[in-house]
Amino acid sequence: MQRIGVLTSGGDAPGMNAAIRAVVRKAIYHGLEVMGVSRGFAGFIDADIGPMQVGSVADIIHRGGTILRTARSDEFQTRSGRARAYQNVERFRIQGLVIIGGDGSFMGAKLFHEEFQVPVVCIPATIDNDIPGTELSIGFDTAVNNAVDAINKIRDTATSHERLFIVEVMGRRAGFIALEAGLAGGAESILIPELPFSVEEVCDKLMRGYRRGKLHSVIVVAEGAASGIEFGREIKRITGFDTKVTVLGHLQRGGTPTAQDRVLGSRLGALAVELLMEGRCKLAVGIRNGRPDHWDLDECLDGKKEIDLEAYRLAGILSI
Amino acid sequence: MQRIGVLTSGGDAPGMNAAIRAVVRKAIYHGLEVMGVSRGFAGFIDADIGPMQVGSVADIIHRGGTILRTARSDEFQTRSGRARAYQNVERFRIQGLVIIGGDGSFMGAKLFHEEFQVPVVCIPATIDNDIPGTELSIGFDTAVNNAVDAINKIRDTATSHERLFIVEVMGRRAGFIALEAGLAGGAESILIPELPFSVEEVCDKLMRGYRRGKLHSVIVVAEGAASGIEFGREIKRITGFDTKVTVLGHLQRGGTPTAQDRVLGSRLGALAVELLMEGRCKLAVGIRNGRPDHWDLDECLDGKKEIDLEAYRLAGILSI
Amino acid sequence: MQRIGVLTSGGDAPGMNAAIRAVVRKAIYHGLEVMGVSRGFAGFIDADIGPMQVGSVADIIHRGGTILRTARSDEFQTRSGRARAYQNVERFRIQGLVIIGGDGSFMGAKLFHEEFQVPVVCIPATIDNDIPGTELSIGFDTAVNNAVDAINKIRDTATSHERLFIVEVMGRRAGFIALEAGLAGGAESILIPELPFSVEEVCDKLMRGYRRGKLHSVIVVAEGAASGIEFGREIKRITGFDTKVTVLGHLQRGGTPTAQDRVLGSRLGALAVELLMEGRCKLAVGIRNGRPDHWDLDECLDGKKEIDLEAYRLAGILSI
Amino acid sequence: MQRIGVLTSGGDAPGMNAAIRAVVRKAIYHGLEVMGVSRGFAGFIDADIGPMQVGSVADIIHRGGTILRTARSDEFQTRSGRARAYQNVERFRIQGLVIIGGDGSFMGAKLFHEEFQVPVVCIPATIDNDIPGTELSIGFDTAVNNAVDAINKIRDTATSHERLFIVEVMGRRAGFIALEAGLAGGAESILIPELPFSVEEVCDKLMRGYRRGKLHSVIVVAEGAASGIEFGREIKRITGFDTKVTVLGHLQRGGTPTAQDRVLGSRLGALAVELLMEGRCKLAVGIRNGRPDHWDLDECLDGKKEIDLEAYRLAGILSI
Repeated sequence: MQRIGVLTSGGDAPGMNAAIRAVVRKAIYHGLEVMGVSRGFAGFIDADIGPMQVGSVADIIHRGGTILRTARSDEFQTRSGRARAYQNVERFRIQGLVIIGGDGSFMGAKLFHEEFQVPVVCIPATIDNDIPGTELSIGFDTAVNNAVDAINKIRDTATSHERLFIVEVMGRRAGFIALEAGLAGGAESILIPELPFSVEEVCDKLMRGYRRGKLHSVIVVAEGAASGIEFGREIKRITGFDTKVTVLGHLQRGGTPTAQDRVLGSRLGALAVELLMEGRCKLAVGIRNGRPDHWDLDECLDGKKEIDLEAYRLAGILSI
Repeated sequence: MQRIGVLTSGGDAPGMNAAIRAVVRKAIYHGLEVMGVSRGFAGFIDADIGPMQVGSVADIIHRGGTILRTARSDEFQTRSGRARAYQNVERFRIQGLVIIGGDGSFMGAKLFHEEFQVPVVCIPATIDNDIPGTELSIGFDTAVNNAVDAINKIRDTATSHERLFIVEVMGRRAGFIALEAGLAGGAESILIPELPFSVEEVCDKLMRGYRRGKLHSVIVVAEGAASGIEFGREIKRITGFDTKVTVLGHLQRGGTPTAQDRVLGSRLGALAVELLMEGRCKLAVGIRNGRPDHWDLDECLDGKKEIDLEAYRLAGILSI
Repeated sequence: MQRIGVLTSGGDAPGMNAAIRAVVRKAIYHGLEVMGVSRGFAGFIDADIGPMQVGSVADIIHRGGTILRTARSDEFQTRSGRARAYQNVERFRIQGLVIIGGDGSFMGAKLFHEEFQVPVVCIPATIDNDIPGTELSIGFDTAVNNAVDAINKIRDTATSHERLFIVEVMGRRAGFIALEAGLAGGAESILIPELPFSVEEVCDKLMRGYRRGKLHSVIVVAEGAASGIEFGREIKRITGFDTKVTVLGHLQRGGTPTAQDRVLGSRLGALAVELLMEGRCKLAVGIRNGRPDHWDLDECLDGKKEIDLEAYRLAGILSI
Repeated sequence: MQRIGVLTSGGDAPGMNAAIRAVVRKAIYHGLEVMGVSRGFAGFIDADIGPMQVGSVADIIHRGGTILRTARSDEFQTRSGRARAYQNVERFRIQGLVIIGGDGSFMGAKLFHEEFQVPVVCIPATIDNDIPGTELSIGFDTAVNNAVDAINKIRDTATSHERLFIVEVMGRRAGFIALEAGLAGGAESILIPELPFSVEEVCDKLMRGYRRGKLHSVIVVAEGAASGIEFGREIKRITGFDTKVTVLGHLQRGGTPTAQDRVLGSRLGALAVELLMEGRCKLAVGIRNGRPDHWDLDECLDGKKEIDLEAYRLAGILSI
């Protein structure tokens, strides 16, 4: 192997730059060349591809987002789109590909490998942390800390006004951010799509707390579970409490990555290069049993990542 | 003068605790007693009033919100409500009142003084910075920094995705937060209620930037100027750009106050006590020509605080 | 079991409050009573002990330090000191003890259990992360993020001045903070007590970088490996580079705990209570294979926690 | 005027990039060309000079340090060095110069103007805020907030351990950072070079607090007033308190600039260009009476900036 390519795909996640840096420098350290593909699979098709040096990734480990940028590509979802991308694999003499992204990107990588035998190693990077197979994805820790920081700020206001706050967090169809941020933020209730909930039950808990003297509460709602705005309206209708809603939105994705996301990106980036050098060709890397590990890419595509029920129950107990 | 009261009213603002601390300690230093009134004018009416010591305000200068809490009081808007509050002035032998809040609170203070001759000194505290007479209000600097921090985070995502982001910030009917945060955040356009704008013009600027190679933009919208969500929809319709909207909401109010808001709260709190001790009785304190100063309360209630047109034009020039 | 005690001991660590909150609420949820012991073993001897309610731990999860405070106790190191503490176990009818702290605290807990048969469960909390048996200790993640944040700030200055910066971080006799912060901060070299290093080698690397055009560097030094100030002097003598030294000191311990430290504290606190309720009596809890787990307390006292050599080598490769 | 130059000189200060961005874009907006001079006067002498475009200053407003870098130049302190720099003024056809830096840089600018009649406008940028004539310098607000943030973190530990902390902050021969950070951080004592102090008095205050039940304290020491380490040793000797010292060092200079420093940099940068365009030739810009203003450069070089005695006294009163 003499030359590999690297791209980021799907939603951006803090720590992607640490992974890019690790791929580039680890590869160069071992004498490989690295081609950076801009704007994900879209840039692959458009030949938006160029060589990367040690200096290309200087001073990026602390930056949010991805210097390679990312984009959706409808064309890559088609056989003919992937064929065009493969032409660039040949043209740029890329012998292995590191793909940093979420499950959609992994699916694209799998098809690309199956159709054109390009060796691929995928690195899980999504703030949603919803990729099966790995315990952690790059960006999750930063997103959770961003959400918790916002909850902290909102709690100041909630306390001063004796108000109820609904905070809607990201996570697509999964509740990982909501659960972790709710537990860390001391939320009075947490709503996630994986578990049923009833407005009445939430209201009951609020009323019990209120009678005990609890004058302010924060409820964390995963975007996949309910609309924060509609849920807030319901709560207000039933309890009569002064209810405010905040939809955190895209600021959860941004900001300087946490130490954990930088270390995670660095380790998984380096591991991906090692595996390509060993001649492996359809793998995912990630964290298993608390350690960097790898497995067949299919394990990240089948099934569904389970929420930690014990953590959910614990959050309920600790917020009495 | 032997005993004064202090309350916070209206929306909470970071730095209110620094002001409370300064009022309490400055007064005690000069031998006065201080009664803390909880939940603003509502607590005044309900006799939710208690003595404060040096230790009551220990370890609060770095906390957001207000330890005295705040609330709306419809009752205090009526003559009879204020009469009930005045009964507590007499009952608790309060000889002067420091009122920390926004223009609504100042209006209440004015009426209270005129009707019952209670000496009042008002301290401007509102993240909106919309109180006439003072150049700065407590909480504004923190709110602006919170908004700028959010813009920073969103820009990471905007850059990675080559997207257009609309960020709606607070400010009620004024554009102070939007202008300051937009200027500091390097926003491509800033929409404020004080100045006319047209969607077409904003789109023209976006298109010009796009043709020059600018692949991402952030537009800051004051809540008083437009709904971020509706404005984003319009922009998308006209330009076809991938447009995302974030409504920052209440997290702008929270968090550890900045150094400036703590110093401002400390200085104005101490000044208010000095003025009460001098026998003054219907004043506002604030910043004029860059320095703590005081003036008749009416100056804060008449007229409208002007936006800085030069700063607005500058923001336009610097975001080319 | 009807009543348990909880204390924090040794150096304070961010996330201790989350653990206290979890112990108190989990215990009360299951019908137990909780006595809080102030100032660690010193407070135990002095009977500085009082009941804790659900409300005692409200609004503390986001605070650094420990509301129970902590202190060194020379007296508890003696048999007679522990005997006095045991009198308070009897007086306050404490049937099990949760001890949150570092290895010194664990040793005290072990002796206390062996001599007086008091059931103890220990929760590892130390920013140094040097407790054998557990992969993670409460406070480590926050300390690392604090150090990385400082490195970020220093890098701004290093870049502007083309300077070499030495940053000395905490960790006592271990290099965990230095390694993790150095890897996450992109440090050019990392010095830890677990591995030999030579000033000459560090200087060689600096000179090689310099010749390649690298105009600024950051070297992270664990306090257990070398004095940052002396090391900086040596480097300057050999290379002639403009070298500045920053000793981060106690600010690494403080600040709002990260989400991870809050979740870790919450989970381990709850687990400790469960184990006491099951009648277990000399355990440590912690993280093993990425998950909360427990084991005999002795495992935390024997041996030495190993540094991750692979992470160390990786840091070297990525900082070329 | 067709072409101007811009440089940063002396110690770096957060917000310098905002000023560079404003100079470049404001000038280009009015049809001027801008040459960026790297590494201050040293780069001027070495002809390290190149054209800047609108895009050269994209995405820098939120970055600490200075993209133009800065350096000391012993050569520019000599007549012959300045003559060499002037050759580059001619070579690059620079008709006016914006110099962003501290008082040393201003003195260089003055000589350069007097000897070679190059029009200069100086922008005050130093975290120390010690430049006479202007109420504020770029970088001060960020440095103070960095120091206050560190004090917050240290206070967590101080509270948990019932300890005394000495925090040494920057400021060169002036106490501005110490006073502002001490006031905002609620420090129990503040030591600045402008005012006499005695260890005994500080100890007396500590002992009085201790007897009243104050179990932890933070003392802020300006580097120009005393060595934190020696002062801490003295305090410990006299009081016997467990005293820890933290020297904040260079991390005060770094980090994302605050909103205020970005706005300040933007406004002063634009004003400097306007003044050059008007044909003015030996000015300083800055803040006077709370507003951007300009005056003869000599006003920044004569005399000494006075500390705010009232703020100092207030800090004493509020920390009882």
